[in-house]
Amino acid sequence: MSQFSPLIDELIEALRCLPGVGPKSAQRMTFQLLERNRPGAQRLASVLARAAEQVGHCRSCRTLTEREECPICADSRRDQQTICVVESPADVLAFEQGGDYRGLYFVLMGRLSPIDGIGPEDIGVDLLVERVKALGVSELILATNPTVEGEATAYFISEQMRRLGVPVSRIAHGVPLGGELEYVDSGTLAHALKGRQRFE
Amino acid sequence: MSQFSPLIDELIEALRCLPGVGPKSAQRMTFQLLERNRPGAQRLASVLARAAEQVGHCRSCRTLTEREECPICADSRRDQQTICVVESPADVLAFEQGGDYRGLYFVLMGRLSPIDGIGPEDIGVDLLVERVKALGVSELILATNPTVEGEATAYFISEQMRRLGVPVSRIAHGVPLGGELEYVDSGTLAHALKGRQRFE
Ligand SMILES: [Zn+2]
Ligand SMILES: [Zn+2]
Repeated sequence: MSQFSPLIDELIEALRCLPGVGPKSAQRMTFQLLERNRPGAQRLASVLARAAEQVGHCRSCRTLTEREECPICADSRRDQQTICVVESPADVLAFEQGGDYRGLYFVLMGRLSPIDGIGPEDIGVDLLVERVKALGVSELILATNPTVEGEATAYFISEQMRRLGVPVSRIAHGVPLGGELEYVDSGTLAHALKGRQRFE
Repeated sequence: MSQFSPLIDELIEALRCLPGVGPKSAQRMTFQLLERNRPGAQRLASVLARAAEQVGHCRSCRTLTEREECPICADSRRDQQTICVVESPADVLAFEQGGDYRGLYFVLMGRLSPIDGIGPEDIGVDLLVERVKALGVSELILATNPTVEGEATAYFISEQMRRLGVPVSRIAHGVPLGGELEYVDSGTLAHALKGRQRFE
């Protein structure tokens, strides 16, 4: 393959950093972009460079954003007394596409995983506690994934909230066990939200 | 989705220019890159920008390359008397990965398609004729796809070569090696039958 064209080989290789893209689809993408969609390629290159440089974390909820505070945290029409705790920005998108939830989020950017050395400080528990106090939150909804680590994370956070006297609930109905939130359809997610139970 | 984060929305949208990437996988790619692989994202952005700007066509065979002449055309150890005509640079890669072919290529960058207004000048037939004369080619191998348009293109080129007195061959189409007869489509099977060779 290396006798082909160095820059094209480099592009095929670079595209493989995308999840789910093997050598064959990287080739297909390369030729499709170069043969038929240079403007799309230029635009992707420019947006990608800007995003990789500028996107950081929301100072209030930790989600990915290029602003100091994400548009959801900055929206005063959202219910400031309810926080839904999720593992990743993709989970926020999933809830927003459902459209039923009007409160705020807190994005852990991970989950507790002692085996990988991921502790409470890595998932922003201190910031969450601080935020819950500052807003006077009346309900914290735990929407971590229904995996062993997600459940342990939910349990740990519920313990912190118990100390603060903040009511905690856990989404329950509809999310299949072992499934990942971001792949659940929005109807199921709306159902799971409505059917949440007090976490004890 | 637009209340999320403008730059992130823009990246999700830009990734959809990649073939086979729908909204869900564009999201997954975006979060994976921004959460876990910033160096990969930076590298992809830079290679993509350079490739979209610098990659043009080989002056001898029309394939995609950032050089004036591609490494295959520039390699004097390749057999200069044989040219294999293919539709796209991906076909060149496929032959090169096979490893058996030692001649040159000519890449049409398409196929004749009167319905789409693609005529002989769009697929570089003049350059092919010129090149065949200049090299004193002794065999032209037609490896366009076995589609209606690919066959029509092969036929058109073979007529040009007949006028020049250059011998033309067509790669064999049939049951793939290791393939099972019962899973091969009937068109391929009919073709394989018609193209049968004496067994010795
Ligand atoms: Zn935020
Ligand atoms: Zn060439």
